[in-house]
Amino acid sequence: MMNVLGNGYINLVDSMGDDLTIVNAARKSFGKHSGDFSPKDKKLLKYLWDNKHTSPFEMVEFMFEVKAPLFVVRQWQRHRTWSYNEVSRRYTSDDLDFYFPETWRCQDTDNKQASSGEVNKVAQDHATHVLWGHTKNLTVVYEDLIESGICREQARMILPQNMMVEMVAKTDLSNLLHFLRLRLHKHAQWEIQEYAKAIVELIEPVVPETIKLFKKESEFNYGNEHKP
Amino acid sequence: MMNVLGNGYINLVDSMGDDLTIVNAARKSFGKHSGDFSPKDKKLLKYLWDNKHTSPFEMVEFMFEVKAPLFVVRQWQRHRTWSYNEVSRRYTSDDLDFYFPETWRCQDTDNKQASSGEVNKVAQDHATHVLWGHTKNLTVVYEDLIESGICREQARMILPQNMMVEMVAKTDLSNLLHFLRLRLHKHAQWEIQEYAKAIVELIEPVVPETIKLFKKESEFNYGNEHKP
Amino acid sequence: MMNVLGNGYINLVDSMGDDLTIVNAARKSFGKHSGDFSPKDKKLLKYLWDNKHTSPFEMVEFMFEVKAPLFVVRQWQRHRTWSYNEVSRRYTSDDLDFYFPETWRCQDTDNKQASSGEVNKVAQDHATHVLWGHTKNLTVVYEDLIESGICREQARMILPQNMMVEMVAKTDLSNLLHFLRLRLHKHAQWEIQEYAKAIVELIEPVVPETIKLFKKESEFNYGNEHKP
Amino acid sequence: MMNVLGNGYINLVDSMGDDLTIVNAARKSFGKHSGDFSPKDKKLLKYLWDNKHTSPFEMVEFMFEVKAPLFVVRQWQRHRTWSYNEVSRRYTSDDLDFYFPETWRCQDTDNKQASSGEVNKVAQDHATHVLWGHTKNLTVVYEDLIESGICREQARMILPQNMMVEMVAKTDLSNLLHFLRLRLHKHAQWEIQEYAKAIVELIEPVVPETIKLFKKESEFNYGNEHKP
Repeated sequence: MMNVLGNGYINLVDSMGDDLTIVNAARKSFGKHSGDFSPKDKKLLKYLWDNKHTSPFEMVEFMFEVKAPLFVVRQWQRHRTWSYNEVSRRYTSDDLDFYFPETWRCQDTDNKQASSGEVNKVAQDHATHVLWGHTKNLTVVYEDLIESGICREQARMILPQNMMVEMVAKTDLSNLLHFLRLRLHKHAQWEIQEYAKAIVELIEPVVPETIKLFKKESEFNYGNEHKP
Repeated sequence: MMNVLGNGYINLVDSMGDDLTIVNAARKSFGKHSGDFSPKDKKLLKYLWDNKHTSPFEMVEFMFEVKAPLFVVRQWQRHRTWSYNEVSRRYTSDDLDFYFPETWRCQDTDNKQASSGEVNKVAQDHATHVLWGHTKNLTVVYEDLIESGICREQARMILPQNMMVEMVAKTDLSNLLHFLRLRLHKHAQWEIQEYAKAIVELIEPVVPETIKLFKKESEFNYGNEHKP
Repeated sequence: MMNVLGNGYINLVDSMGDDLTIVNAARKSFGKHSGDFSPKDKKLLKYLWDNKHTSPFEMVEFMFEVKAPLFVVRQWQRHRTWSYNEVSRRYTSDDLDFYFPETWRCQDTDNKQASSGEVNKVAQDHATHVLWGHTKNLTVVYEDLIESGICREQARMILPQNMMVEMVAKTDLSNLLHFLRLRLHKHAQWEIQEYAKAIVELIEPVVPETIKLFKKESEFNYGNEHKP
Repeated sequence: MMNVLGNGYINLVDSMGDDLTIVNAARKSFGKHSGDFSPKDKKLLKYLWDNKHTSPFEMVEFMFEVKAPLFVVRQWQRHRTWSYNEVSRRYTSDDLDFYFPETWRCQDTDNKQASSGEVNKVAQDHATHVLWGHTKNLTVVYEDLIESGICREQARMILPQNMMVEMVAKTDLSNLLHFLRLRLHKHAQWEIQEYAKAIVELIEPVVPETIKLFKKESEFNYGNEHKP
């Protein structure tokens, strides 16, 4: 399990297959190999990668447990090839938890939907102070509604988008790589980039050869433009 | 355009095909028909429906413009066979708008994720009062953050789930019927049922024969269990 | 590995998850359980099943190796939620293999796209004889084209639909159950029913509780209408 | 309707939306525009294209009627984001029709799954002669099986992959562009490239600005490597 954004996390619960599965699927021949990934396998993997033969990469599967702010989860769930199960606020009013940024960023002036650099110390402290106060207030309001007998499915409408959400999320390697390309891109919001980076680390021990190819491509394509 | 939940709405922007498209697709023969839907077509449509031959129903397409509370949009977007485009709060801080329920419902005691009946007059007034006050406060806090130079993509985390969201949403008739079955079900939250009911009215002039079959099925399956 | 249709087969190469994964996903809580599937888990599984909460069933994944006649593979690949990798006849001209039915069935007179009963002994022998002769001829023709230097991607057009095709096919449990409902249905062609039956046997040790629920539903819905 | 491969064809039966739909969807604002596509719209379309914002392109839909050889249809149906309805050979034994290549290509020696250049005149004539004879024979065999009372779903197994198949096929512009990129690629089989080229011509009057961007990209990426 890796901590992300302070009180968030991502955990690789289960996986199916590895680098060998990909080349075996491409060859439609299983059982011939065991243990080591040979130079011949490596060459085939690179061929599949370079020629964008994506279907064998669909044969490897990953299931994650995620805790992330609602605004991150919303971006995530726009990916329609994943399977999701999420703790519903229709179901429970317990364990409310919120994301508080360590750093507040400035509105970018060129790209209307991006941020750029950090606001000054005074603005940082002010924003954090304001968010804490507001979160404290809304928690009181939420509990008030629940105690008044209002149903959870309506009371939850007061809950903000820095509310932490827990979900199970599953996809295959091919669609995961697509997710990573989009969510590690410099235009992606910094918060979801943090989850994408964690995913790379979590799956690297499972598919090390594929991640090598991915990292090489990434260096070439968007390299040091990434936010640190 | 139909108003839903007060300041929300749904509009059928465009569509492709009609009842005839379905039977033509099933027969793989276009151009033979024009104008009227014959008794023979009707019989074939019923056969396709009764035998769950869903693929011809995929040939009819609908595009909607929707304004709905965030918690409704989140339920909607769990349907992964739709296409969506949404106004992003990374992009704009203008035109904030919120949903205020006319009626507050009680927590159901049997079904942990449902509501049942209405809370009493005192609780109604209290909840509405509380929601208004809270919404006023958060709007002030949000604008404060924006004016402090905080990027929109971070400032939006304060925005709650009764925030109205605008989106374009497109799907085919087969997947739309699946959406309607789930979202008109008595277990669905009342607010999304309102949008589902509006959809039935909007598409009925386009595919009247299909909607006849749908309504007949609905009466049989979950009829008067529906919330009014 | 299970033999199907004589020289065909299906093999469960790999899987991810089991009955426990489903209820854990529904609860969004892993690690709390180990080993035995408790009565409480069983109750939750049945609740999910009865209420058609299909998303937790998406969290279990199966990968099969399949060898089947082309006409079966074509029906299979109409299922668009699976991942497939197939031995392409653009790539190889080796290892041609064909399906020869043990039994030839009569054209159904009611259902235009079904069969019903068996043709008489004379017709059986005649059809088998004809198919053998024809297959022998086409193999000669195919090899003739290949030896003339014609590209495999064109020469293959002579290959018939009883040609055996090898593929890797992967899907999740929810979509697999949908496949099984359609392909075990009495209207499905007998040959693909054979593969569907084999799948039930192959996955039963992995998700025994789910298969119990599936078999109960099947008895009720289409029970003895199934072809033996 | 455009003829492809002699007796094959492709026809754009219906469509929904145009270039304007794409930019309207991106802006989530309909009704503001009518008639002409302005320079501002063009600029936004190019921005969406260059930044791979594909979701607004999903809002335009196309439905085609296709007649193509089975081996082409099989490649086509590997695209799982399309909707298909196909004339089933379980259903009818009428109107058998076959593809006869005008030109026979050589097996490529570098790329195991490609062709390259044409075989000589003698091999051309031989292959055509052989295919005609074989097709004539199999038609006799097929009709013999049907007349013996064998069900169509079994008799069809004798039908080869140059059999012409009729289908309805529907997809959105974003997924159609993906199809075109793969099927206009020099590695795609020449026969399916012919259908892809016909699609470009058929949709150009509907989305002329998008096709301009597509053609520009194509020149740059795989330009004159394409087979003529």
